[in-house]
Amino acid sequence: MEEKIEKVVQWLRDQVKEANVKGLLVGVSGGLDSAVVANLIKLAVPEHSLGVIMPLDSSPDSVTHAEKVIEKCGIDTITIDLSETHKVMYNQIQEKLKQKNEWQEINDQLSNANLRARLRMSTAYALATNYNYLVVGTDNASEWYTGYFTKYGDGGVDILPIVEFTKQEVREMARALGVPDEVVNKKPSADLWEGQTDEAEMGTTYDKIDAFLKGEEIPAHDQEVIEKMHQRTEHKRKAANQFRFQN
Amino acid sequence: MEEKIEKVVQWLRDQVKEANVKGLLVGVSGGLDSAVVANLIKLAVPEHSLGVIMPLDSSPDSVTHAEKVIEKCGIDTITIDLSETHKVMYNQIQEKLKQKNEWQEINDQLSNANLRARLRMSTAYALATNYNYLVVGTDNASEWYTGYFTKYGDGGVDILPIVEFTKQEVREMARALGVPDEVVNKKPSADLWEGQTDEAEMGTTYDKIDAFLKGEEIPAHDQEVIEKMHQRTEHKRKAANQFRFQN
Repeated sequence: MEEKIEKVVQWLRDQVKEANVKGLLVGVSGGLDSAVVANLIKLAVPEHSLGVIMPLDSSPDSVTHAEKVIEKCGIDTITIDLSETHKVMYNQIQEKLKQKNEWQEINDQLSNANLRARLRMSTAYALATNYNYLVVGTDNASEWYTGYFTKYGDGGVDILPIVEFTKQEVREMARALGVPDEVVNKKPSADLWEGQTDEAEMGTTYDKIDAFLKGEEIPAHDQEVIEKMHQRTEHKRKAANQFRFQN
Repeated sequence: MEEKIEKVVQWLRDQVKEANVKGLLVGVSGGLDSAVVANLIKLAVPEHSLGVIMPLDSSPDSVTHAEKVIEKCGIDTITIDLSETHKVMYNQIQEKLKQKNEWQEINDQLSNANLRARLRMSTAYALATNYNYLVVGTDNASEWYTGYFTKYGDGGVDILPIVEFTKQEVREMARALGVPDEVVNKKPSADLWEGQTDEAEMGTTYDKIDAFLKGEEIPAHDQEVIEKMHQRTEHKRKAANQFRFQN
């Protein structure tokens, strides 16, 4: 594991050089993946790394966990509370749609959850431009394969250091990196609404997805769920110009 | 030209079917490219197309032009004024950076311009989720090649109907589609700050870029400017997973 970590850290340093930037930043949510990435970028560029906390009606636990992750790894940090921004923006969108009698209550939760992810992306990039840093992604192999991320939200990043690792491998990296136990052991959640957990939303488990990605046998139902998610989200993993008119 | 337009319109209808959505929307800025796209999507799905006006400290001309474009093509419309959202968000980011003594005044204009584009993208997607529409991009061949767009901002779209056409071809399409003269003939501007024009910012002209893309001879200086822009923006045209750690 130490060797693997060293390779990723070296790769991160190479990215900084190739992109001709000063450093790296990551949004720290209080979850496992961003905890690992925060530690990796701190190791790669100790003096030019930043962990960004962006509370947005998050559960209080998430913010506490994010702060613990940052304290433990010693990375420089900034907090941008997006609650007010989000409220102003979403209220206006909602109001205008209601005026037109075209507000679709049924799509509210999804629309809102994705908006949160996109406001976080927008904030991360505003900071990245200020510091001349790259925005580092936190997607792991399981999320990437199933498309369990917001297009141009948490999927909107410059580089992906842990996208080849399954959730289980990321957890092992977290232990080796000294990520606080409560973060390593908690249920994965995108924290998009109260009580949300990834696994309940996906209808399968990370263990099953991990096994599937390693080519192991898993129950037919889970395999079907995973393959359906993969197909339905193909567009999220491609660049926009894959969907262009050609004469 | 009519035949070309018919082909794009048919392609747009195919995209709606393939993505299994109800319709299409586009952000209408008052500029040439979005005027053409608004007309194209209105032709493709007359009852399920939407032109979104998103004022954000825009020049008054831009909003007037956007309204004229929409009136002329008869597309359904909604206006979401993002000025207040942007003010709340950017002030907070700026204030926090200043508290840390890490505010880089020199990057302010770029950071702010890109944030505007990303807030517009976020709004377009919130509406797209409400209506179950795709977000249609307005990039043309010249902008795409030179990377003259914001990553995950105006570059953050589902499909690109006019990305194969040079600025000149888009202008010819606009005339054929009946886009108002004042929009067809005005100087291209991303309207990111007062008096901004694309050509002044890029240091070359759309005519030269168009000629270059058609393989014609252009002055060495312009060729150099264009190729430099292309190289520097390579990452904007690729999916994030092109920049991933691989063991």
